[in-house]
Amino acid sequence: MIIQTYNAAQLATLEQRFRTTFINSLSGFKSLSLIGTLNAGGQTNLAIFNSVVHLGANPAMMGFIVRPDSVDRHTLVNIRETGFFTINHVQAPFYAQAHQTSARYPEDVSEFDATGLTPEFRDTFPAPFVHESTIQCGLQLSEIIPVSANGTYFVTGTIQTVSVPADCLCDDGYLDIEKAGTLAGTSLDGYHSTARLERLSYAKTDRIPTPISFNYRL
Amino acid sequence: MIIQTYNAAQLATLEQRFRTTFINSLSGFKSLSLIGTLNAGGQTNLAIFNSVVHLGANPAMMGFIVRPDSVDRHTLVNIRETGFFTINHVQAPFYAQAHQTSARYPEDVSEFDATGLTPEFRDTFPAPFVHESTIQCGLQLSEIIPVSANGTYFVTGTIQTVSVPADCLCDDGYLDIEKAGTLAGTSLDGYHSTARLERLSYAKTDRIPTPISFNYRL
Repeated sequence: MIIQTYNAAQLATLEQRFRTTFINSLSGFKSLSLIGTLNAGGQTNLAIFNSVVHLGANPAMMGFIVRPDSVDRHTLVNIRETGFFTINHVQAPFYAQAHQTSARYPEDVSEFDATGLTPEFRDTFPAPFVHESTIQCGLQLSEIIPVSANGTYFVTGTIQTVSVPADCLCDDGYLDIEKAGTLAGTSLDGYHSTARLERLSYAKTDRIPTPISFNYRL
Repeated sequence: MIIQTYNAAQLATLEQRFRTTFINSLSGFKSLSLIGTLNAGGQTNLAIFNSVVHLGANPAMMGFIVRPDSVDRHTLVNIRETGFFTINHVQAPFYAQAHQTSARYPEDVSEFDATGLTPEFRDTFPAPFVHESTIQCGLQLSEIIPVSANGTYFVTGTIQTVSVPADCLCDDGYLDIEKAGTLAGTSLDGYHSTARLERLSYAKTDRIPTPISFNYRL
C-alpha cells in the first residue's frame, strides 16, 4: 500500500478547496443532524450539521461546532436570541433535502419552505422539530464556548425532550439508529448507510469482549 | 409507528446504565478513533474515543471530548504533560482490539501491549501512532477547554502530520475513508461498516444538488 504523508507546512500550501475537503475527511464518520431554530420574530431556520457530539448523560447533554462566517450563522444568532434548538437525525428518505439546507438562503427564507421539509411544533417547545425525522431532540442552550484558536464556537445544550421510534429501543437503553434509518456523513458531502458488525460487551482487563445480543422492547 | 417521548424529568429518573446507553445513542453515528500518547516517562497509552470532530481546515484542527473520571484520564494527563497526541482511525480488521483499550488497565500497563496493537514512532513525533491504522494524524495540543456544565473538557489540536492510503484520495481532496475500512460507532459499544449512498454537490439556492463522481488520484 502506498501511503501519502503531509506535514503541516505541506497542508498549508494545498489549494484551499482541496485542503478543506481533505481535512474534513480526517475526523472519521460524522453524525448528520438538522438543527432547527426560531429567530426573535418567529421565523423558522433549519441547517445541517455534521459535528454533533455526546457530552454527558446526566444531565443529558450534546454539543456541536459552529463557524460564524458560514451558513451556520443564522443558527447561532437564533440560539443566542431564543436559548433553544432542536437536533433531528438525518435519515435515508430525506438526506438530499437535508443537504440542500446548506445553501445560503437569505435570512427571510425558511429552509423548511425551500427544501420541503416540514416544521413540527410540539407542546410549547420554542423551536421547530423536523417532522420527517423519527429521532428528535429538543435542547436548551447551556453554553456558547469560544474556541480561540480559530474563531469557532462549541455550543452545548441540555436535552429537554426526546422522541424516538419505540421499536428501535432495546432493553438496555441502546437505540438502534441504524434500524431507524439514520445516516452517517463523510467530509463535507458524503452520505452513507451503515451495516452493523456487532455491539461489544463492556471491556474488562481480564477477558475478551463478547457480542451483546439485541433485545428490542417492542 | 409508535413514538416514545421522554422529557428531562423522565430522563432523570431512568436507571443509570439505561440512561447512559440511551443518551449516548442520540448524537447519531460517531467517529471511532484511537488516541495515542506518551507519559512523561515515555510509557505509551492508547484509548478509543468516539467524540473526535473536525474543527477547522486552515490551520488544520480537530477536537474531542474527555471525561476526567473515566478511562480517558491517562490520555488527558499525558496530553497535558507532553502537548502531543495521535488520532488513528478504527478500521475493520482491529475494531475488537480498539474496543478493548477501554478496559481500565493500570497506568503502568500500555494498552498497546494489552491489546496486541503495534505502536509506531515516526520521525521525531512525540506520540505513538497505531501501526494497524492506515489513517494516522499527529497533533499538537492547542487548548484544553473546560465545559463547566458537567466537568468535561473539549481538547483541541493542530494537525502536524497526516498519513493516508494514496489510493483512497480523490482529485478534489476527498479521502474515501469507507474504502480505507474506517468504521462508524453507535452509543457506547456499536461498530458499523458503511455503504456510500453518494456525494452531493455544493448546495446552491437555485438548483438541486447532483451526485459528485469519484476520481481517485491513483
